[in-house]
Amino acid sequence: MANVAKKVSWSGRDRDDDEDGRAGETTPLLNGTGPGAAGSGRQLTPSPFLRIGQLSNVDLNEDIRELETEVPRQRPNEIPHNEKLLSLKYESLDYDNSENQLFLEEERRINHAAFRTVEIKRWVICAMIGILTGLVACFIDIVVENLAGLKYRVVKDNIDKFTAKGGLSFSLLLWATLNASVVMVGSLIVAFIEPVAAGSGIPQIKCYLNGVKIPHVVRLKTLVIKVCGVILSVVGGLAVGKEGPMIHSGSVIAAGISQGRSTSLKRDFKIFEYFRRDTEKRDFVSAGAAAGVSAAFGAPVGGVLFSLEEGASFWNQFLTWRIFFASMISTFTLNSVLSVYHGNAWDLSSPGLINFGRFDSEKMGYTIQEIPIFIFMGVVGGILGALFNALNYWLTMFRIRYIHRPCLQVVEAMLVAAVTATVGFVMIYCSRDCQPIQGSSVAYPLQLFCADGEYNSMATAFFNTPEKSVVNLFHDPPGSYNPMTLGMFTLMYFFLACWTYGLTVSAGVFIPSLLIGAAWGRLFGISLSYLTKGSIWADPGKYALMGAAAQLGGIVRMTLSLTVIMMEATGNVTYGFPIMLVLMTAKIVGDYFVEGLYDMHIQLQSVPFLHWEAPVTSHSLTAREVMSTPVTCLRRIERVGTVVDILSDTSSNHNGFPVVESNPDTTQVAGLRGLILRSQLIVLLKHKVFVERANLSLVQRRLKLKDFRDAYPRFPPIQSIHVSQDERECMIDLSEFMNPSPYTVPQEASLPRVFKLFRALGLRHLVVVDNRNEVVGMVTRKDLARYRLGKEGLEELSLAQT
Amino acid sequence: MANVAKKVSWSGRDRDDDEDGRAGETTPLLNGTGPGAAGSGRQLTPSPFLRIGQLSNVDLNEDIRELETEVPRQRPNEIPHNEKLLSLKYESLDYDNSENQLFLEEERRINHAAFRTVEIKRWVICAMIGILTGLVACFIDIVVENLAGLKYRVVKDNIDKFTAKGGLSFSLLLWATLNASVVMVGSLIVAFIEPVAAGSGIPQIKCYLNGVKIPHVVRLKTLVIKVCGVILSVVGGLAVGKEGPMIHSGSVIAAGISQGRSTSLKRDFKIFEYFRRDTEKRDFVSAGAAAGVSAAFGAPVGGVLFSLEEGASFWNQFLTWRIFFASMISTFTLNSVLSVYHGNAWDLSSPGLINFGRFDSEKMGYTIQEIPIFIFMGVVGGILGALFNALNYWLTMFRIRYIHRPCLQVVEAMLVAAVTATVGFVMIYCSRDCQPIQGSSVAYPLQLFCADGEYNSMATAFFNTPEKSVVNLFHDPPGSYNPMTLGMFTLMYFFLACWTYGLTVSAGVFIPSLLIGAAWGRLFGISLSYLTKGSIWADPGKYALMGAAAQLGGIVRMTLSLTVIMMEATGNVTYGFPIMLVLMTAKIVGDYFVEGLYDMHIQLQSVPFLHWEAPVTSHSLTAREVMSTPVTCLRRIERVGTVVDILSDTSSNHNGFPVVESNPDTTQVAGLRGLILRSQLIVLLKHKVFVERANLSLVQRRLKLKDFRDAYPRFPPIQSIHVSQDERECMIDLSEFMNPSPYTVPQEASLPRVFKLFRALGLRHLVVVDNRNEVVGMVTRKDLARYRLGKEGLEELSLAQT
Repeated sequence: MANVAKKVSWSGRDRDDDEDGRAGETTPLLNGTGPGAAGSGRQLTPSPFLRIGQLSNVDLNEDIRELETEVPRQRPNEIPHNEKLLSLKYESLDYDNSENQLFLEEERRINHAAFRTVEIKRWVICAMIGILTGLVACFIDIVVENLAGLKYRVVKDNIDKFTAKGGLSFSLLLWATLNASVVMVGSLIVAFIEPVAAGSGIPQIKCYLNGVKIPHVVRLKTLVIKVCGVILSVVGGLAVGKEGPMIHSGSVIAAGISQGRSTSLKRDFKIFEYFRRDTEKRDFVSAGAAAGVSAAFGAPVGGVLFSLEEGASFWNQFLTWRIFFASMISTFTLNSVLSVYHGNAWDLSSPGLINFGRFDSEKMGYTIQEIPIFIFMGVVGGILGALFNALNYWLTMFRIRYIHRPCLQVVEAMLVAAVTATVGFVMIYCSRDCQPIQGSSVAYPLQLFCADGEYNSMATAFFNTPEKSVVNLFHDPPGSYNPMTLGMFTLMYFFLACWTYGLTVSAGVFIPSLLIGAAWGRLFGISLSYLTKGSIWADPGKYALMGAAAQLGGIVRMTLSLTVIMMEATGNVTYGFPIMLVLMTAKIVGDYFVEGLYDMHIQLQSVPFLHWEAPVTSHSLTAREVMSTPVTCLRRIERVGTVVDILSDTSSNHNGFPVVESNPDTTQVAGLRGLILRSQLIVLLKHKVFVERANLSLVQRRLKLKDFRDAYPRFPPIQSIHVSQDERECMIDLSEFMNPSPYTVPQEASLPRVFKLFRALGLRHLVVVDNRNEVVGMVTRKDLARYRLGKEGLEELSLAQT
Repeated sequence: MANVAKKVSWSGRDRDDDEDGRAGETTPLLNGTGPGAAGSGRQLTPSPFLRIGQLSNVDLNEDIRELETEVPRQRPNEIPHNEKLLSLKYESLDYDNSENQLFLEEERRINHAAFRTVEIKRWVICAMIGILTGLVACFIDIVVENLAGLKYRVVKDNIDKFTAKGGLSFSLLLWATLNASVVMVGSLIVAFIEPVAAGSGIPQIKCYLNGVKIPHVVRLKTLVIKVCGVILSVVGGLAVGKEGPMIHSGSVIAAGISQGRSTSLKRDFKIFEYFRRDTEKRDFVSAGAAAGVSAAFGAPVGGVLFSLEEGASFWNQFLTWRIFFASMISTFTLNSVLSVYHGNAWDLSSPGLINFGRFDSEKMGYTIQEIPIFIFMGVVGGILGALFNALNYWLTMFRIRYIHRPCLQVVEAMLVAAVTATVGFVMIYCSRDCQPIQGSSVAYPLQLFCADGEYNSMATAFFNTPEKSVVNLFHDPPGSYNPMTLGMFTLMYFFLACWTYGLTVSAGVFIPSLLIGAAWGRLFGISLSYLTKGSIWADPGKYALMGAAAQLGGIVRMTLSLTVIMMEATGNVTYGFPIMLVLMTAKIVGDYFVEGLYDMHIQLQSVPFLHWEAPVTSHSLTAREVMSTPVTCLRRIERVGTVVDILSDTSSNHNGFPVVESNPDTTQVAGLRGLILRSQLIVLLKHKVFVERANLSLVQRRLKLKDFRDAYPRFPPIQSIHVSQDERECMIDLSEFMNPSPYTVPQEASLPRVFKLFRALGLRHLVVVDNRNEVVGMVTRKDLARYRLGKEGLEELSLAQT
């Protein structure tokens, strides 16, 4: 079937070796290859797949660590759900190109002009990402506005009817039922069709950009469920926003367009094939996430910064500029379409899903005396945010333990929807805060028990989509709310939002956070004026804005990007400095208690997430101590059976294999020659790229890069590839498929050094070699992600199979 | 003096080896270490300093390259000044920590709490950078305002006097003399005291952040000259701005504060000693540059983006947040001080040195029909910018060839000052564009031949500091300027600004570019209304803004950061999209003709500047082809005399030496063991860290990291260190000082791969090793910077000693 031209002196000893090799699986071969045993490398064990262990020169610490890590690898029956675990089930993405011969040949064939075409394609894709993301945002906005409008009108009519003749409990029942049924549909599709569409998707995108493969996260199906889900959640009256999910939607759009095909729809448009690898796809997903932020908040620069803050490891000017372009196109598209929809074409005044409205800094400047007050608000926001996160942490733990069945999840979502409606109704019912209807911008003014020409002020907060409530709190003239209303609203909404986050529905936490913050911020402003007997004139709108920033900052702990998002969403640069102060304070205070919400959820999922730097106190660890060992190596010319056995071995979930010199006759040391990925081996096996041992002189079948790209990203499992007994005896030459220059580190390198290399280049496998370039271990994501800085110093997470 | 504890079997053969070794300097030892010559590595040549050459397996191309590069190394008498040279005189900065034993011991000693202290210190330093940068900006602003005010009042009085009684040529003489004498002082201090303070300093800071050491660039003396120089240039009426130099000033402030001492003043405050290394210093310089942008334009986010766009290689969230903090503090300080100075304390409405004034988007929104017009303006800006750069390129070439003596430079600066005044005067004199004085905001209205109650409109542009002229062009009501005035002004100012940039004065090019652009932008707006007979109402102020963006973009080619700076300076988010489009178009069009101004000047200085990525078509090159070879290696235990000889050898300007195994008795291969820097060796020699050969068992003197830090960054030259003949025979053990885990690449790695590693980690030396970890070459900055993408494909620059 395939032939070999290479002249390799291959002896008949291999079958025997094979036995050794398989034995090696259970009893790793340990070579003493320390500096003291200088010559031992030459006595290379001629086993077909090496497991080179390095245990000499290793201190006691490592032995203990070895024991610790070996235990969870044996799939414990029950995993205690806590943060101190790291799951082994997540695969990594590879942001380092495998520069094998095929790749280099292709790159060398492409000339200067062709690279320009590739560059132009990148720009076109970014424009498409921007346009589509903007359109999706429009769709969500328009559908939500209409459906929610319909719902509120129906309920309002009902309430108006029953206010007069009594029996408002029918109205409550109607409202709660409407909400619960809408949410039920939203929850059903998420729970049963695509659970990864739950929540805001921001933690998932953070993980993706960080280099962790979350299954299904950028599939078309996820997008559809996400969009429908978020519409239903918002219409269902939950304490959620439609902004966070835009980031996820943008990312899916980007991943889809950039690949020029949809595996879900089984359509391949045969375009953009050059971009079918993790490196390129990641860049586009960054652009998609930025476009999502941009569409959500009308904040193109904030979007770019969000992408960079969450995703970038290596800043690249061209990439950043493309991301910015996608962001700008996205907000522009949204703006144009919505302006046409709202009938005032080309007004271009609604750049995002939520617009905070214009804060006129002439009228609402701040003075230096207010800065300590803002900082105090930051402290409050940090504490409230930490409380929110802590409550949500316990709730999530409870959910993981007890509410893991989809139907239970749907029931919980319905319950929350009904409770939200009930709480809102009761609050509105009990409120006696009436305001004159004239001159106010309330969309659905509920009169209830107010006098004619007045409306119930509590209803502006509860009987409305959260976006509108936020804007009302920012801009309603002083005196629109009485302090009691605001206090009760803050308290109730805080717990509702906390309960809601983590439900099996698509929904964001940005808007509820802003709403809570705006409510207590406004209350704070009013109290300040009251307490100082008017000597400090605290504009309630301004304090609502600062409170919103403080609360959101306390919950999500984003920094630079959030400042810019807030600045852009208010259309006001002047507030930049106080907003930054507030966010920074909230972050510092919040971090003192508990982590940010997204990071918390990432940890609760035991994702091996790499932070920006290695823990500061980790200089005492070296590569030798953190690396995984033994490592399964392949020879440059390997027996097919051995490859199949290695890939089928479920006890090892390695996805990259160092390739070492194959000729067992020479006394040469088994130096590292390259690195080959599981996915590449699978494609090779699938295409039967091997030759019979008898015909080693024949030319092995040549593959093209296209064959690998076509299989990307859903490589078939090894079980699906049939290899006959005869084929098992064939030989496979890995030379032209392996990456001949994998990155390596010496054993003595400190953890921060290894971390820096790994993180900056977005690696997946980093081979640890000794002084003679022999493989002694391998560092992968989980080996680095397990070290964390806890309160007590350096902590080590355990590894778990689930 | 020093003792050795290591038990190394050291034979008496070394003196003989030494002779071999020195011979090796002129005739490099070439080992054939290709795969075919497997065993040869074991026959290690026992020369005390190895020069391992690798010429086998090298194709013809490389031999040719070798020849090409060897020629300029012999210091040619005359260097043709063109862009195709790369100077060897620039040293690199090392952004990779040398993680030797001393460093690791210190890091391990520092506990968690101490790291928190370090972190707090970083924040304190950033706050100080922000405050000081803001204060320096205030100082410049106030002094310029007063001095320029004084000058314009004197000249105005004089003109007013002579307008009545005739003899305006005296006024011209007065004006020209005043300008020329002020500029003379400004030019004298720059030319004779600190030439590196010339220009805007942005190219220099770009180089510094990129990793190139420009001598004196961050010294206190440079700051003083820069500040005085820029004041004198602006007061001297040159076509320059005071904004660009703020970036340089901020950087110097940052470098100074973060080191806790001033070598110029010979004061060491014994604080912040932890930060005395390139890595940390670079981070603070980024913050300083951002603070400078922030103070200049009131654009804190723009500042952060500028720093990242120009400097960052690895994006780090904490660092970015600190940079943002410094930027915010800087603009806040400036704002507060200026508000007090202007008498309306805490008004906080002047966040930068230049404020474009408020663009009210309600009144001045844009419609989608205008977008093609803006894009067209971008094209015009790109072409005009390219023309500006091309003219300036020829001018700079001329200057390099003929105006290299300081006194000539001063004369040229005076000439430009006098011509600028004359041109301004003649233009004002010839202009008949009179405008009513009422309601206008002109600072020094010149009546000249206008009727009473009117002023000369040309004078608002010429008889004013350029900052004020820009704001006038943006905000003066429609009809303030007639098209003729604007056209003549654009034409004259274009050539004046072009002539001025590159003079030996401290000055920026931002404001003149904005001014040229604002003038033709306004003209464009007026013409548009006129041509379409008013059917398109083009607000002249808006078009002036777009023109300014187009012109500045066409000249400097900055992208994301410039968009954000413009957005922040206008205080308006709405214009973000058109500004981005304009800048992008200007960049694309401009790049088609000629490079950006800063990049052009960097190339004219032959600086080995690393761009973001390797040229796209460079996959055909491998590490083997780009590396420098032979490499001078040191043994782990080396004779002092050998070290001194290597360091004194002027033919090699290497600053890092691979350390290889020292024991010549074993048959072990000479694998790489570490890397040691020239600066480290010098400190070792200075402190006499070696032992007599007879007493090898004695303990070598121990150094502390402090000894290295105290010498940083001005390490003494090797000539200043006296080593006696007896000391030459001593031995030095490098083990604990060398970096035991330098980054390496295999010979087969492609250039883009090497480039990515080098650039992302900010390396200075990258060792190329073969399959057995033997050193075969070294890649440094110049080896990577020499490959460039020209119009014809991959180009290679020659190396030159000057």
